[in-house]
Amino acid sequence: MTEPEALLIIAASEVDSNLYYATRFLAPDPFVFLQVDGRKVLLMSDLEIDRARSEAKVDEVRSLSAYESKARQRWPNPHLTDTLWLLFDEEGVSAVTVPANFPLEYADRLREKGVRATAKPDPLFPERVVKSPEEIAAIEATQRHTEAALEAALNVLREGEIRGAHVYWRGEVLTAEALKKVINVSLMENDCIAQHTIVACGIQGVDPHNQGSGPIRANESIVFDIFPRSSRSRYFADMTRTVVKGRASDSLKRMYDAVLAAQLRGIGLIRHGASGPAIHAEVSRTMERLGFETGVADGRHQGFFHGTGHGVGLDIHEPPRISKANHTLRTGQVVTVEPGLYYLRWGAVRIEDLVVVGPSGCENLTRAPKFLEL
Amino acid sequence: MTEPEALLIIAASEVDSNLYYATRFLAPDPFVFLQVDGRKVLLMSDLEIDRARSEAKVDEVRSLSAYESKARQRWPNPHLTDTLWLLFDEEGVSAVTVPANFPLEYADRLREKGVRATAKPDPLFPERVVKSPEEIAAIEATQRHTEAALEAALNVLREGEIRGAHVYWRGEVLTAEALKKVINVSLMENDCIAQHTIVACGIQGVDPHNQGSGPIRANESIVFDIFPRSSRSRYFADMTRTVVKGRASDSLKRMYDAVLAAQLRGIGLIRHGASGPAIHAEVSRTMERLGFETGVADGRHQGFFHGTGHGVGLDIHEPPRISKANHTLRTGQVVTVEPGLYYLRWGAVRIEDLVVVGPSGCENLTRAPKFLEL
Repeated sequence: MTEPEALLIIAASEVDSNLYYATRFLAPDPFVFLQVDGRKVLLMSDLEIDRARSEAKVDEVRSLSAYESKARQRWPNPHLTDTLWLLFDEEGVSAVTVPANFPLEYADRLREKGVRATAKPDPLFPERVVKSPEEIAAIEATQRHTEAALEAALNVLREGEIRGAHVYWRGEVLTAEALKKVINVSLMENDCIAQHTIVACGIQGVDPHNQGSGPIRANESIVFDIFPRSSRSRYFADMTRTVVKGRASDSLKRMYDAVLAAQLRGIGLIRHGASGPAIHAEVSRTMERLGFETGVADGRHQGFFHGTGHGVGLDIHEPPRISKANHTLRTGQVVTVEPGLYYLRWGAVRIEDLVVVGPSGCENLTRAPKFLEL
Repeated sequence: MTEPEALLIIAASEVDSNLYYATRFLAPDPFVFLQVDGRKVLLMSDLEIDRARSEAKVDEVRSLSAYESKARQRWPNPHLTDTLWLLFDEEGVSAVTVPANFPLEYADRLREKGVRATAKPDPLFPERVVKSPEEIAAIEATQRHTEAALEAALNVLREGEIRGAHVYWRGEVLTAEALKKVINVSLMENDCIAQHTIVACGIQGVDPHNQGSGPIRANESIVFDIFPRSSRSRYFADMTRTVVKGRASDSLKRMYDAVLAAQLRGIGLIRHGASGPAIHAEVSRTMERLGFETGVADGRHQGFFHGTGHGVGLDIHEPPRISKANHTLRTGQVVTVEPGLYYLRWGAVRIEDLVVVGPSGCENLTRAPKFLEL
């Protein structure tokens, strides 16, 4: 008898997208997934077993508590890995492949029992990196809702009135918090959940992950970075736009034009077989050629100091990266293209679209227009 | 020279609450946390380093890219664990404690380099289980917003009009989806994010994790289970109420009374030193004595087949459990008390409050009233 090929995942599919991808079953607490020679088996608690039987795309759902009862006959206080070992014994499994992020404690306990556990470097499911037409449609649907949310926020800015350095809306100083609420509520209306939406004005935007707070200032850059997940499909979208309420300085306009030129250059290079590092280098060079340098100044990173893009799907950051990392693009991947420039003197500009890699180019899933002043 | 005591975490604090607890710094991508003899050091990417330096509650933030440059002088294509090894070498670290959920791939790579990596069983930070006054205040604030969201949904039910089996609201059949939107938008207005809010009517509620969908039916149980996280504090709250729009059957009323009696009995037993299994057994017995049996019938789990409660904090499910698991309550823990009854013939009832364990009793953080019909 040959040793069966076994893949083991123990995780909460709520946070582990590989497990959700493998089962299409969403649960908040960890559960056991074992694939033996292609057959998918779940061990579920009494609380989840009926729902798993009706929803999970697996071959078999077994009762965890039944295995636990058996385990208690052998061990006084069985650990989950003891219980699991009974399942392995039944299935003739003595070696398992596990995800790179498999919990060390479980792996060590299984190894103590003589099970060979081998971590597979990411991606666990290489096919997850290339999106099916259904997955692309799901991402695009989330993207439409993202655009509607941005539009709602831009309408607030349009309605707002500049008084001195600030913007007033409905009689109050308009804040980043108020704009985020408009965005997040719009998304929620469409069953999308946005966490860490960025509305960063002026110098705040110079830190690309500063979420922004306080009054929106007129005539300064405002970076909107919106990356919600659909509660229905579980797929993310991701988009960034930079605008100014009022008048942008000439320096800011030049920055905007440079970022847009770099983004369009990057989008133009995306196609099956293209090299992530080559695209990233060309995007960086485009901005350098237009006079925008990168480096540490005044103790802060300034210029362009993040990657050009990343894959988007069931996770907000997925392979492939378009960065210094050695990744090659393939047809069907969904990636962002999001160069930015960040200077303490002038503010921040980032422009981000979501595109599908094609055989000889790419399809842009993003419809939101690009403009600086409103 | 004695070997320093070192704790290593590599995770995204966005999903790993231990890392957020240790650093109070939120980042969407994995980063390195090393605590050597009590001194906390972060290795951060260029993208996050400035924000980490201003926000993270650690002793030192170092540049990951600087260590990567050094690593490239030694290895052609250094892995994160190679880079990390340079930091270990500087700090004289050859053995590390890591969390139980530490990624196996990283552990194995470190072990290949001669580093002893030992997984510490949960809880990684035992002090996280007991909440400080500030943490309790944060949980209670989220709880207030949870109650406001429930009240918004109940007001929709109050405004709704029964026509035949259904409830109409603003001219349309009222659905679970519409009620969830009211709840989630109310929470969003208060910077709370709710995922998987449950509004489960009639037979849907018999599966405790069915989120509910479709028309709300008059005269049937509706389970509202709301467990949002505050985007500001990161702390969760958790509450369940069961109501009927119209008239409840006598069986449903008896079920409701039994669940409420069991819940009050459970709450009455909570105090420092109380045993989780003892409370859970007494809660179960209270419902049994009132005639409500638990077991598999018609191929489904029916009766009371989940735990009585769980800790709540930076995660929605934390230790301690009030269940068959052998946990003992301690002053300052925040736990739910949420018995339920589930029968295919009658529907579902669950009632859940959030309480703080005290030296000789508990303080109930939940203010929402308990009633069945509206």
